[in-house]
Amino acid sequence: MNVAIIGYGNIGKAVEQAVLAAPDMVLSDVFHHNDDLSRIKADVAILCVPTREVPEYAQICIKQGIATIDSFDIHTRIYELRKELSPLDIQHKTVSVIAAGWDPGSDSVVRALLLALAPQGITYTNFGPGRSMGHTVAAKAIEGVRDALSLTIPLGTGVHRRMVYVELEDGADIKRVEKLILKDDYFKYDETHVIAVPSVAVLNNVAHGVNLVRSGVSGTTHNQRFEFNMAINNPALTGQVMVACARAAVRMKEAGRFGAYTMIELAPIDLLPGNPEALIKELV
Amino acid sequence: MNVAIIGYGNIGKAVEQAVLAAPDMVLSDVFHHNDDLSRIKADVAILCVPTREVPEYAQICIKQGIATIDSFDIHTRIYELRKELSPLDIQHKTVSVIAAGWDPGSDSVVRALLLALAPQGITYTNFGPGRSMGHTVAAKAIEGVRDALSLTIPLGTGVHRRMVYVELEDGADIKRVEKLILKDDYFKYDETHVIAVPSVAVLNNVAHGVNLVRSGVSGTTHNQRFEFNMAINNPALTGQVMVACARAAVRMKEAGRFGAYTMIELAPIDLLPGNPEALIKELV
Repeated sequence: MNVAIIGYGNIGKAVEQAVLAAPDMVLSDVFHHNDDLSRIKADVAILCVPTREVPEYAQICIKQGIATIDSFDIHTRIYELRKELSPLDIQHKTVSVIAAGWDPGSDSVVRALLLALAPQGITYTNFGPGRSMGHTVAAKAIEGVRDALSLTIPLGTGVHRRMVYVELEDGADIKRVEKLILKDDYFKYDETHVIAVPSVAVLNNVAHGVNLVRSGVSGTTHNQRFEFNMAINNPALTGQVMVACARAAVRMKEAGRFGAYTMIELAPIDLLPGNPEALIKELV
Repeated sequence: MNVAIIGYGNIGKAVEQAVLAAPDMVLSDVFHHNDDLSRIKADVAILCVPTREVPEYAQICIKQGIATIDSFDIHTRIYELRKELSPLDIQHKTVSVIAAGWDPGSDSVVRALLLALAPQGITYTNFGPGRSMGHTVAAKAIEGVRDALSLTIPLGTGVHRRMVYVELEDGADIKRVEKLILKDDYFKYDETHVIAVPSVAVLNNVAHGVNLVRSGVSGTTHNQRFEFNMAINNPALTGQVMVACARAAVRMKEAGRFGAYTMIELAPIDLLPGNPEALIKELV
């Protein structure tokens, strides 16, 4: 299958590596931001653009009958995006896989599976340790901050600590910066520590992780316990998930199952190269 | 959906509890071993019979157009069973979900997902601590053994210890029994400890578990680490998985996707009650 990459930042580069490593894919083209997208030649376009630009880029591709993959990550608007793209996919006889990263994405698959295994109970998704993009951007926007990094630290039961490393602008007061951060909407509900550092750049690290736990009831039997842990390079995993979903999108399209799907709507086997016989023998 | 249970041992009883707890299912009938199966009235039959009898019972149901679920667990013959049942399912316009337990079953889904997340690397499935049915039966068959229990203890990297508790027949020699167990095909490749106890019955416990680990490569990035752990009541989980797969089978049948499927071929959302909109909003 021929794969086009749209957007060439951290994620675009990670997708490129995953496509080149895939035994069943050819990288047909890489489109940078603002390239002309009027004539994409590919079976599937992997959208590595900022989340808010996903709907626009997806529509451009879908209208050319090209399958699309995105890692749209605004949890509360995923269903909306699916509803927006699905009729367009059906009209143009193609497939979109949306919210295809690790959370939303592969974590969503684990949450769905655990809910099936123990329908009554509580699932906690504990993120990190790792950098939160949203919180980092919020901290950078604070007056007096030259650069910032907000780490998410998992405290269990879905509660997180925020470790905010700030590089101050000349003359800025750390006490004042701390006060502004602590009352910001992104930080005011969580335990937050603000630490002044001489350089944020030297702290940067794309490591991230998750600890996803569920204790629940199967049938009438309580105390069923499940746990999923990851410690990963964030863009590398996101890129790999998008590439796996590109494979599934092309297969769904070939099967005539047009529309927009989230990862919990895909059969895991379709994420994998190789024939069903070999995969079933290896994995089941 | 109307669900029939065929076979009423440990698993049949666990399935019954899970069906009764399901908001979208009605238990239409429970068939004991040797009941007349010529006129089953149900959308789906959950086969809780011994693994070797699954093909026979599945065919009886499929020929009546009824979807079937089994937890057939001979890993090396799962593909064969799928190949045998799938054309029959297609002929009778129905669906079978096979090997639907926790391993094979939900663990297979986790293995497939982890392979998609990091295509290069090694996955280890470490079972236990918990009772191995196969090893327990093998130990019971040894001359001089009245009753036995073989526990599987995970040592990591897919290596297991066998703790074999034996209740001896009158006059039996523990040294001789131990020697026979250690050279048995089931035990000779693993570290095995044989322990004489006055009563095996008081040791019994249906607890089991798994520790499934993968370290691999996403794209070109090494050191991606994943882990899935469970500590569960074995029949309760098996029953719950079968019930979740019954739901998926009926949905696949309604969608006209006839045939036999393993769990890695099912979309996780189809395992769950409720509408896609609510599930996507909750889980993705």
